[in-house]
Amino acid sequence: MQAEIITIGDEILIGQVVDTNSAYIGKALNSIGISVYQITSVQDNKEHISKALTEAESNADIIIVTGGLGPTKDDITKHTIAEYFNDTLIRNEAVLKNIEWLWETYIKKPIQQVNKDQALIPSKAKALMNTVGSAPGMWIEKENKVFISMPGVPFEMELLMQKEVLPRLKEKYKRPFILHRTLMTYGMGESVLAEIIEEWEDNLPEYIKLAYLPNLGKVRLRLSAIDFDEEKIKTEVEEQIQKVLPLIKDVFVGFEDEHHSLEFVIGEELVKQGKTLSVAESCTGGKLAETFTANSGASAYFKGGLVTYATQSKIDVLGISEETINKYSVVSSQVAEAMAKNVMKLYKADFGIATTGNAGPTKGDSDAEVGTVFIALATKNEVISHKFALGNNRTRVINKAVNKALELLQKEIFKNR
Amino acid sequence: MQAEIITIGDEILIGQVVDTNSAYIGKALNSIGISVYQITSVQDNKEHISKALTEAESNADIIIVTGGLGPTKDDITKHTIAEYFNDTLIRNEAVLKNIEWLWETYIKKPIQQVNKDQALIPSKAKALMNTVGSAPGMWIEKENKVFISMPGVPFEMELLMQKEVLPRLKEKYKRPFILHRTLMTYGMGESVLAEIIEEWEDNLPEYIKLAYLPNLGKVRLRLSAIDFDEEKIKTEVEEQIQKVLPLIKDVFVGFEDEHHSLEFVIGEELVKQGKTLSVAESCTGGKLAETFTANSGASAYFKGGLVTYATQSKIDVLGISEETINKYSVVSSQVAEAMAKNVMKLYKADFGIATTGNAGPTKGDSDAEVGTVFIALATKNEVISHKFALGNNRTRVINKAVNKALELLQKEIFKNR
Repeated sequence: MQAEIITIGDEILIGQVVDTNSAYIGKALNSIGISVYQITSVQDNKEHISKALTEAESNADIIIVTGGLGPTKDDITKHTIAEYFNDTLIRNEAVLKNIEWLWETYIKKPIQQVNKDQALIPSKAKALMNTVGSAPGMWIEKENKVFISMPGVPFEMELLMQKEVLPRLKEKYKRPFILHRTLMTYGMGESVLAEIIEEWEDNLPEYIKLAYLPNLGKVRLRLSAIDFDEEKIKTEVEEQIQKVLPLIKDVFVGFEDEHHSLEFVIGEELVKQGKTLSVAESCTGGKLAETFTANSGASAYFKGGLVTYATQSKIDVLGISEETINKYSVVSSQVAEAMAKNVMKLYKADFGIATTGNAGPTKGDSDAEVGTVFIALATKNEVISHKFALGNNRTRVINKAVNKALELLQKEIFKNR
Repeated sequence: MQAEIITIGDEILIGQVVDTNSAYIGKALNSIGISVYQITSVQDNKEHISKALTEAESNADIIIVTGGLGPTKDDITKHTIAEYFNDTLIRNEAVLKNIEWLWETYIKKPIQQVNKDQALIPSKAKALMNTVGSAPGMWIEKENKVFISMPGVPFEMELLMQKEVLPRLKEKYKRPFILHRTLMTYGMGESVLAEIIEEWEDNLPEYIKLAYLPNLGKVRLRLSAIDFDEEKIKTEVEEQIQKVLPLIKDVFVGFEDEHHSLEFVIGEELVKQGKTLSVAESCTGGKLAETFTANSGASAYFKGGLVTYATQSKIDVLGISEETINKYSVVSSQVAEAMAKNVMKLYKADFGIATTGNAGPTKGDSDAEVGTVFIALATKNEVISHKFALGNNRTRVINKAVNKALELLQKEIFKNR
């Protein structure tokens, strides 16, 4: 069972928009046992879309197309699909009703002809009702293959996937079970890790695939398996994990899945321990707080944070003494430690974590080299800090600093288990 | 002049990783006049990679491949490329020296054979030196086409693009000029906007392409043109912009380009006015602060922010009275306004902006409906607030709230121009 995803839009090819839809669809299909053979992003161009459809039809059983369904003149997907199936567009009354309802309920302005025309779909297509937007999804079967078209607006596509596409695919196809399990490691290079687990890797059963995913100080190891016998692969993958864990115990920090990023693992453990967290950020500028609060349920352990970006605000808001800043400079272990301690007290939290550094590209309120970052962690008993040199790319410095902060915090709170 | 981008890796197809490399490469190629015909993401599988190379060779002049160049067993790109060109791998002494230098300078552990083996490249390839990682880039010419292979780690790829790939492409090919100009509008739907500018759109010269990019309350209008005469298209696109601006003046907020997102436009204007900003965030959890600090130069106007996630922290850190919270609830215009006023004072800033709401999926410290968000803006003279209903998807509520906050702020500060 193979699917191909086609995303349509010049904005993707010119790099104005990152194609996040494909990742969402890929993950959703995997969750019901459907593999993705290929993702293809093409131009808003009739010939190109048709060519992609033809190729996808020869590669895959399920062809999922997103984008190009808007009411404006640059949106040509619907006409192209109709032509591809030698079909014509006809009005779908249920879709028209839905559009009229959306206009009455949300837009509260006179409905226009171009919006009504969004109810025109190929006569061979089943409409997939879009309750949050005016472009319907479409489902067209051809022999044992199915073509699915959805709007490119992410939340409309996501809702259609969950409410319409996945249930229909489950009903139509007998599907195997796909299992991915990802082990997160921090602090060891890919090749050293590979050497340590080489013998284990060489003895993995043929149908269990191992992948290394290195990124900014962490390496993820993904085990993947696919089979109709769900119990069998769950058991065998778990056995392999139990074999490898002792080999990597010094760098293993937890499992990743949809809901188990490192920040989620930390949050879960904090809740279990009944502990709370606060953060004081300079160079990471709110990114660390945002990393925690992106997860629902963060309010159970995350008290809040401070972004003291300007030096004066470290004095005014966080109560760092001017003397400390003048003596050691604003990018120093002393200031990082004072930030961590003070934010912990201010928020009445059990842990305080602080970042101060220079993310570049130019030097800010300090003479520190671009890429120098101090990260401090305060607990009820002590304050520790570390100095890092994180390169000279601003975005990378910020992301690496967030990762390092998570790593420090994880080590500290898992000590207490 | 057409390019095709091939990204290799199961992690993309299963949705574990979002392919951001393609957007980076697409934008970089456009900047030197090279269009991207198609982006194709394929599996870590020899046959599939070869098939993608064959198809790309028939579509494009320049084929750029990323991923699959690591030292571990799941990385097969190099061998597949060698086979594709009927070539063998030979040791490249300069690459080996570079790898040894990286190990001495950064890794400081004994170098392993698998890392030395990364110096093996197809004999027909020119090595593109990677100074931040052990996998070299490769450049292979075949008739008038060129195949380029780079590692998938984003910052390694980015450095190789800037230092090696773009300069070589500029030298090898005569390229046209590609111009994209994007007008940002807030607060009007795509189809209403389309109606307002219909006549203008219908009279656009054939070679100027218009695209509508709707997303979470904003619609971007992109004008694109390509020609060897740079001056001509710059002049004509500018003329068209001057024609459309009066039509959309109520909703137009600025131009977007690589460095001109709305937060950047706001930052620039604040610096021009000599004004400063602070933010107090509840439901947006740090995302608003992060949006500003992601831009270098933010320290010129961004004093800092508070994430008062727990209700108690709004009292302890931000000095909101318990009475106000009890009387109106924590998700209310009164609390939002107090947050905005107090954060402005605390940070001694000219503006304070605050968010409080319920991002869901479950109700937090308040009884407010999921998706209810209050956003307040404090200036020296007044405090205003607005109530929004932003749906029931957590990520979307957070992102929409950030957009609404930016929109309010932009309107306020542009009033003073």
